[in-house]
Amino acid sequence: MARLISLGENAHPVLREVMAALMPHAGKAHIVGITGAPGVGKSTSTNALVTALRQRGKRVGVLAIDPSSPFSGGAILGDRIRMSEHSLDSEVYIRSMASRGHLGGVSWATPQAIRVLDAAGCDVIIVETVGVGQSEVDIAGLADTSLVLLAPGMGDGIQAAKAGILEIGDIFVVNKADREGAEATVRDLRHMISLGDRTEPGLWRPPVLKTVAADHDGVDEVLDAVEKHLEWLRSHNILGQRRLRRAADEIEAIAMQTLRQRMGDLRSGHRLADLAQYVLDGRVDPYAAADDLVASLVEP
Amino acid sequence: MARLISLGENAHPVLREVMAALMPHAGKAHIVGITGAPGVGKSTSTNALVTALRQRGKRVGVLAIDPSSPFSGGAILGDRIRMSEHSLDSEVYIRSMASRGHLGGVSWATPQAIRVLDAAGCDVIIVETVGVGQSEVDIAGLADTSLVLLAPGMGDGIQAAKAGILEIGDIFVVNKADREGAEATVRDLRHMISLGDRTEPGLWRPPVLKTVAADHDGVDEVLDAVEKHLEWLRSHNILGQRRLRRAADEIEAIAMQTLRQRMGDLRSGHRLADLAQYVLDGRVDPYAAADDLVASLVEP
Repeated sequence: MARLISLGENAHPVLREVMAALMPHAGKAHIVGITGAPGVGKSTSTNALVTALRQRGKRVGVLAIDPSSPFSGGAILGDRIRMSEHSLDSEVYIRSMASRGHLGGVSWATPQAIRVLDAAGCDVIIVETVGVGQSEVDIAGLADTSLVLLAPGMGDGIQAAKAGILEIGDIFVVNKADREGAEATVRDLRHMISLGDRTEPGLWRPPVLKTVAADHDGVDEVLDAVEKHLEWLRSHNILGQRRLRRAADEIEAIAMQTLRQRMGDLRSGHRLADLAQYVLDGRVDPYAAADDLVASLVEP
Repeated sequence: MARLISLGENAHPVLREVMAALMPHAGKAHIVGITGAPGVGKSTSTNALVTALRQRGKRVGVLAIDPSSPFSGGAILGDRIRMSEHSLDSEVYIRSMASRGHLGGVSWATPQAIRVLDAAGCDVIIVETVGVGQSEVDIAGLADTSLVLLAPGMGDGIQAAKAGILEIGDIFVVNKADREGAEATVRDLRHMISLGDRTEPGLWRPPVLKTVAADHDGVDEVLDAVEKHLEWLRSHNILGQRRLRRAADEIEAIAMQTLRQRMGDLRSGHRLADLAQYVLDGRVDPYAAADDLVASLVEP
């Protein structure tokens, strides 16, 4: 699995065949995204969820995505130490991935890594990412069910609204709920959610749950909510819609990657240099040259 | 000019015709990039250079690019106040631009703004940007002559080497040279440059100059070096090469923008949704779907 995921990260030429071969075996896993600000306890929560999933007999994959790291494949020390209790469990696969890089970030390598874990028979795949800027929204696009983690005093409802997480969360979890202010954060969140547009009948009303993930407190309830959400997605035919949008995202990311690759190839050839000379000579304008370039990209 | 530059920033549909019409009038200006860390005195130096250029009878354009700002067109208050001594001079045009945004940043709007100023008869166009991350390298790609500003104690040679600015600078200026440590910074820089690969005969050896831009001290010498560099570019036929590369960059940026636009159009149509459904049904793999998408991008 590690090697297959690395193929995706490095855009190896054999990737295409590999992914095509995996296709018939994928499509069964429940993709669960976990996001939250630094310090809310994402790794600890992931760890506790993995334990709870194992108790229910599930095979679990974890992709820990670090949007700020240029490194990949290796262990993020602090996180991985905390996950070490699962390291000898053959039914748990944990992998760190970097999302930054020249290959288009989360949108490029993650769907392929998910497919690898999916085809390997993982029942649940947890995609964990730090909530910084755009990345949590990208992850929400990849997941069937998005968990948003908060901690008391770190994210009250208004901050959550500002950060745009009210829209992406299917389940909200206030972790470190033994700390002061936990009740206020829960109340705040519930209030903000009640003001949103998710209160119509038939729509999923995101629950706000409390955990102390370090003690595994409340984690089973989170898992119940995750399973309930999957049932809801299925019964309302939304799972198919989400997966359709995800497939479209992936196709788009591969297409952009193909185009960037071809653009790079053109730079080393004569076509772009010729066009640049025509522009400098005033024979064509840069827009007409760009049209020509776009045509060359498709028929290289 | 302001309206023409805004057309470029907003990717207005009429842009193409406008740029084509400007082409025959552009290509004469000397593009001078100024970059440096926050606090080295970029705005003050730009202001002093504008004054010196006006004394030599030059028409001057200034594009102040703020890579961190989502805003554009308006004034960056502190900077623009310092520039206000030129605000009544009809031979000076000053404009702030944001580089961040959905349209591809510096690479997209700046070349077009440069063309507008160029066609308007500016002899020299100063492109000023904060040296943060990749942006100064991008600016160096846009400029005929790149000035790198440092201040004593802020950037010694080793830091400059780390930041990659030794490679992009054609002229190094240690501003605030009346402060302690200026001589050491100059010596350090000269040493680092002497270790570089620019000491071969015929290659441009970047000078390291000292200024107190707030008092206009040393600014004439900087301008002399700028003009000398232009002469060197011309006599070694490097000006043409730099402009060729710049034209290629611009064509590439327009092409990518065109493709992103078409990708957006496809999302609102049926093609991508159909392909996504085929992928979900297992009838095609995402790579084959992406190939199809790429073809649709060119023949929409």
